[in-house]
Amino acid sequence: MIRIRDGAVSSRPDTLVAEEPLEIRLNGRPLAITMRTPGDDFALAAGFLVSEGVLGDAAELRTVVYCAGAAVDGSNTYNVVDVRTAPGVAVPDVTLERNVYTTSSCGLCGKASLDAVRTTARWPIADTPPLRLAPELLASLPDRLRAAQRVFDRTGGLHAAALFAEDGELLDVREDVGRHNAVDKLVGRALQNGDLPLSRTVLLVSGRASFELAQKAVMAGIPVLAAVSAPSSLAVDLAAETGLTLVGFLRGTSMNVYAGEDRIALTTTAATG
Amino acid sequence: MIRIRDGAVSSRPDTLVAEEPLEIRLNGRPLAITMRTPGDDFALAAGFLVSEGVLGDAAELRTVVYCAGAAVDGSNTYNVVDVRTAPGVAVPDVTLERNVYTTSSCGLCGKASLDAVRTTARWPIADTPPLRLAPELLASLPDRLRAAQRVFDRTGGLHAAALFAEDGELLDVREDVGRHNAVDKLVGRALQNGDLPLSRTVLLVSGRASFELAQKAVMAGIPVLAAVSAPSSLAVDLAAETGLTLVGFLRGTSMNVYAGEDRIALTTTAATG
Repeated sequence: MIRIRDGAVSSRPDTLVAEEPLEIRLNGRPLAITMRTPGDDFALAAGFLVSEGVLGDAAELRTVVYCAGAAVDGSNTYNVVDVRTAPGVAVPDVTLERNVYTTSSCGLCGKASLDAVRTTARWPIADTPPLRLAPELLASLPDRLRAAQRVFDRTGGLHAAALFAEDGELLDVREDVGRHNAVDKLVGRALQNGDLPLSRTVLLVSGRASFELAQKAVMAGIPVLAAVSAPSSLAVDLAAETGLTLVGFLRGTSMNVYAGEDRIALTTTAATG
Repeated sequence: MIRIRDGAVSSRPDTLVAEEPLEIRLNGRPLAITMRTPGDDFALAAGFLVSEGVLGDAAELRTVVYCAGAAVDGSNTYNVVDVRTAPGVAVPDVTLERNVYTTSSCGLCGKASLDAVRTTARWPIADTPPLRLAPELLASLPDRLRAAQRVFDRTGGLHAAALFAEDGELLDVREDVGRHNAVDKLVGRALQNGDLPLSRTVLLVSGRASFELAQKAVMAGIPVLAAVSAPSSLAVDLAAETGLTLVGFLRGTSMNVYAGEDRIALTTTAATG
């Protein structure tokens, strides 16, 4: 790598974030391919299947294995994993693509995407009693994420996702070249540990809050999704429809609450600004 | 939207970036679904098919239409587009998924991904004579992108991709919730205008340089990909293999050159730092 700084040129080795394709198979049949940072592959595959509504309980997951003989020469590339479900688990049509709302019928629209999440969700978001989070606690989470992240991200090329307890304790943090993969890894770990639904947790993501990330939060039963950057309109629609609290632009002591504001403990008088 | 600033709470309407699914069909058959910012849908679909190696010339594209009767009631959702190719254009198996290297055979690995791009690329990267870009020119591009972007991004939730001429002139800029969509929109526009291969241009992306973005640059014949953030290892591998110049961490007067450094006009003596 050649580094240019104010006209000065130097040459040095660089640490790059690894990116490799992972093929996820379900009971032997190819289901999806994702470009991911290798590591936590079994959790990633399991979490992906939670997001897709296939898995919701550790007992439904029989085993995850690397696909033997995946390469032409019979060796294992470690880039193909097969998730085998327990007997009785309903598996989707293998024509299912990366997005669950691929249908042979028409009518593709934002509404259809919302409906697909609602009909496949295993649990409502049911935090009883409802979480009540102080804005100060939420504001402290990005620094806690960065502190945990700094240990193993020297590349600047990774997205991070972290799961926090309602008292702000960091439960888990995962990084990946793909934001959706980082969340799948978190959720897959929770499934493997028997922790689903994650009904008393906060999910923090380092970038934007897309529909896909909001979907993953809902599918895992997470009641609060906080993002450092902006949410999309469809993410806000999904949050409003499912009861998810959606916080965006969580920076310093500031944040925007787009849905589910009942979980934010507001002490100051509301003013129209 | 409820805004919290240092404990002060206010309520205000907010502008959100729109996100909706788009189904891309090829000659009537569903090919892929992407979550995108509506707008430039025909260009997005055309550019996607350039990236997948299906299209390489405006003459190969017969027409792009919104799928009539896409909704259950027969109305048009504007979220399904059908790309119809000219007679004689080879179209892939409709089981093709989002990633071209989905194969029924095994052997999925980074190497296979690189091979897939090499075998589907229409053109080598052939800028004759080779581009020679001053670091100062490259350093000026992010500001030019932001200046163009500020006009229509008030949401903070969009990724941007811009195409520059070798003298730094901004040729086109597109924004989307998905970085890959922003690039597909640029490339699709270029295809429609008969401008492929884009052999004397620089592609600038607002975030990281993933394998997928490097792939799109190569497939469009773009010789230089510059990113504001880090590249992935597989993106660097692809750049080195195809002759793509890959610049990362392009910020202020600094940048890192990961591959194809012969296109960067280095005037200072190289020092090991």
